[in-house]
Parts: sequence; structure tokens; C-alpha cells
Amino acid sequence: MPPSETPGLYLDDLQVGQRFESGALQVQRDDILRFAREFDPQPFHMDDAAARDTLFGGLAASGWHTAALTMRLLVDGGLPLAMGIVGAGGEVTWPCPVRPGDTLRVRSEVMEIHASASRPDRARVSVRSQTMNQNGEVVQTTLAKLLVLRRPQS
Amino acid sequence: MPPSETPGLYLDDLQVGQRFESGALQVQRDDILRFAREFDPQPFHMDDAAARDTLFGGLAASGWHTAALTMRLLVDGGLPLAMGIVGAGGEVTWPCPVRPGDTLRVRSEVMEIHASASRPDRARVSVRSQTMNQNGEVVQTTLAKLLVLRRPQS
Repeated sequence: MPPSETPGLYLDDLQVGQRFESGALQVQRDDILRFAREFDPQPFHMDDAAARDTLFGGLAASGWHTAALTMRLLVDGGLPLAMGIVGAGGEVTWPCPVRPGDTLRVRSEVMEIHASASRPDRARVSVRSQTMNQNGEVVQTTLAKLLVLRRPQS
Repeated sequence: MPPSETPGLYLDDLQVGQRFESGALQVQRDDILRFAREFDPQPFHMDDAAARDTLFGGLAASGWHTAALTMRLLVDGGLPLAMGIVGAGGEVTWPCPVRPGDTLRVRSEVMEIHASASRPDRARVSVRSQTMNQNGEVVQTTLAKLLVLRRPQS
């Protein structure tokens, strides 16, 4: 590996259809409450009894918490990009709530690679990720537009 | 207000073009580091020196942190829905990074209201939100698909 190179994948190493799988991460009840208190203090994310009578039918993690946990799984090797995971945005869906004690993992696939016309050292890469719980239910999907760089010239 | 009614807006109260504005929230450097350590431990979100040589050109908040802070501003009155802010998903972009010390606020607008064909008590409401810093730069846009209920019949 040349001195300027970082471990992990560069644009040169990616192709459409390539797949990745993350490790696993268990969500504790206290994590759900702590995230909700700071960022999304609504009854269905904070209180069992109050959550029971809502659309969620019981305590559920904030969707943004699910998104943050998914990011952690991707950064921890679920999407091993050399220069890191840098997103300009994308689409997100939450088909199914995350419950206390759920164990999450993420499967990702490269969907499109758009070379930059003006900057030959980079491309916009669309990556679809599915976050699943221990029962194989999809709790989140994202279609992220990532900025990925070519391997530096040595 | 009938006993079964909660303060805030119901579907009956919403119309396309309606606008809302949140309060303000300042992001501290320590908040950026703490969120990054837990959810997005990449150099540009954790270390000034390392961030300088990246695409961010300096320490920047995780996009998911910006999203979580935006949610907090919406829950704290930026989008005063009676039954809470319940999203099935949507689109997000991060046009500009959030820096330590930035003060954020959110402007939202109702874009579309789709009545449910099967459940007359609810509709899917598309809300566009722009999160801005103290200089008026847009740091995040979302187009969220929210589930909004009609006022309960008394």
C-alpha cells in the first residue's frame, strides 16, 4: 500500500451490484429513552404506557435513532470506504419500528456510480441499505448519495 | 376543547402552503463530538486537525446529528401537531456542514395532503423543512411523509 493510501475501498474498487454486510448491534431500552429525551421527546419514544395507545402500540425508537445506529454499523465496517462515508443526502423509510432489545444489522448494495464530469478524482455512488432486526424484518431502508474518491496517484 | 382532544393541530387544521417556524438551538462543539463518538465516529466529525484535510475542511457535525437536532426543533413547537410527528420516511439533503457554535432553526411548509382511501381518519401529509444556520445558510432540507390524524369525533 503506498504511503498516502488508507485501508478500505476506493472508487476504483467499487462496482454496481457489490454487496456488504455489517456486524450486529443490540439496542437497549435505556438507549432509546436517552436518544428520545435529547432529540425526539415524544410519548411513543419515552414511555411504555403512553406509547401503548399510539400508532406504535408500544415503546419504539425514534426513526432518527434507527438512522444513527445504522450509520454506526456502516462506519464500523458495514461499508468499508477508505476515505469514510460522506453523504450529500438520500431517501429514508421506516417500515417497521425498532423495539427495546432488538438486534440490528445492515445489508448494503452499490446501485449506481456516477462519475463527476468536472472532478475526475470522484464520483457520486448510490448505495441502498436495509437495516434489519433479529427476525429479519426491515426497520429502515436508505438510498444514500455518497461522495467517493479514486485511489490517490502515487 | 373536548376531553379527548390534545393541544396542537389536527389534519382538519392543515392546508397546503401553511408555514411554521421553530425556535433556535445552538450546537456546541462537545455535542458534535459526543454524537460522533456514539453514532458516526469518523475523523471529520471528531478531530479538528484530521478534519482539516478532508472534504469538510474542518470539524463538522454528522448529518444524522443535524437531522436529530432538526427533529428536536420540530417537536419543541416547530411543527405543532396534536398527535405528534410520526414519519414513514422521506428525503434528506445536507447542502452545507454544521459547525461548532452554529445556531439552527427550521422553517417548514405543508406541500401535499393525501387522504387515505381506506382509513378516513388519517392522511399522509408531505412537509418540507429547511434547517438554517445563523447566516441563513441551509444546512439540511427534508421532505417528510407524515401520518396525521383527524380531530377525534366528540
